Amino acid sequence: MNIESSILEEIFKDISFTKEERHLISSKFEKIQLQKGDTLLQENDVVYNQYYVFSGCLRTFFIDNSDKEHTVQFAIKDWWISDYTAFFTTTKAAMTIECIQEAIVYRISKKDVEDLYLKIPTIETLFRKKMEKGYAALQKRILASLSQSAKERYTSFISAYPNIEQSVKNYHIASYLGITTESLSRIRKELTHN
Amino acid sequence: MNIESSILEEIFKDISFTKEERHLISSKFEKIQLQKGDTLLQENDVVYNQYYVFSGCLRTFFIDNSDKEHTVQFAIKDWWISDYTAFFTTTKAAMTIECIQEAIVYRISKKDVEDLYLKIPTIETLFRKKMEKGYAALQKRILASLSQSAKERYTSFISAYPNIEQSVKNYHIASYLGITTESLSRIRKELTHN
Repeated sequence: MNIESSILEEIFKDISFTKEERHLISSKFEKIQLQKGDTLLQENDVVYNQYYVFSGCLRTFFIDNSDKEHTVQFAIKDWWISDYTAFFTTTKAAMTIECIQEAIVYRISKKDVEDLYLKIPTIETLFRKKMEKGYAALQKRILASLSQSAKERYTSFISAYPNIEQSVKNYHIASYLGITTESLSRIRKELTHN
Repeated sequence: MNIESSILEEIFKDISFTKEERHLISSKFEKIQLQKGDTLLQENDVVYNQYYVFSGCLRTFFIDNSDKEHTVQFAIKDWWISDYTAFFTTTKAAMTIECIQEAIVYRISKKDVEDLYLKIPTIETLFRKKMEKGYAALQKRILASLSQSAKERYTSFISAYPNIEQSVKNYHIASYLGITTESLSRIRKELTHN
């Protein structure tokens, strides 16, 4: 068994498994400890795995043609992270994932998760629902970028990632919101004074 | 039976069903004929349904705070369409879907599709994979908007939606690409001359 049995409760929440199923699932996961600054996934790596975040904080970023860095996602406890576009098709990552606060993640490969879908269909349902939430969150973010002010996007960010601010550098948050760090400071000041 | 049995082959492709399953599935779908200009889904409607496009062309758009229209998606034969963010949570649509070329779509409700997931798990697998593709497409589009020139985005659009140009107005394509119609004409001329 590669991971502590109690972790399964955290990852799969409401699902109850038989003893054999617990063994099977545990054998598919690998525990990884990361230090601040470690790279979990590098742009151009072929993506075989996705990761459940047990503790700490990670950041996915993308570098555009003018070498500008864009923060695409943060992941904290109970989030899943990967370059999903590459993961689903087992192709090369367009993004990099780095650890920004000491973290423990549990890795599972595409092959293994698909094996679990076949053997334990409730897991496929869970992941189907997670995908739906992920899709909705991504679309909401696109619409927000079209219609919301930077201040509104900052407020949404704070409610989507509560308590994240102590783990994350200001320029990460600014690059996630698509604004400068100066604009971020101004927005924070405005919100404090209201 | 609400829809022709042969349609099931188109919608569910590689899956083979028993006669009882075919009956069950057919009973869940409703055929809808749309004329150009018809609205399939209106902003602020509660979203109970998703739609399989059998023929014609539809467009999803979003109106921002300054009343500017953004084309979020086109849907042609064999695509599914809805305001998925609202569909997954049975909440109000943020977007509007209009028919831009005479269309036939097949409607299925969230309740009915979830009933199918329970009774025919291969359908859940199909939709799980569709969601993965949808998520990947959405993320690719976000990264493209950050890193590609308008000309590259136009070329990607043409390969994602082959033969769509005859069905779609120039200002729809321009608003999908986030450029003016003048820029679109310029790009087309450049590509013709190369």
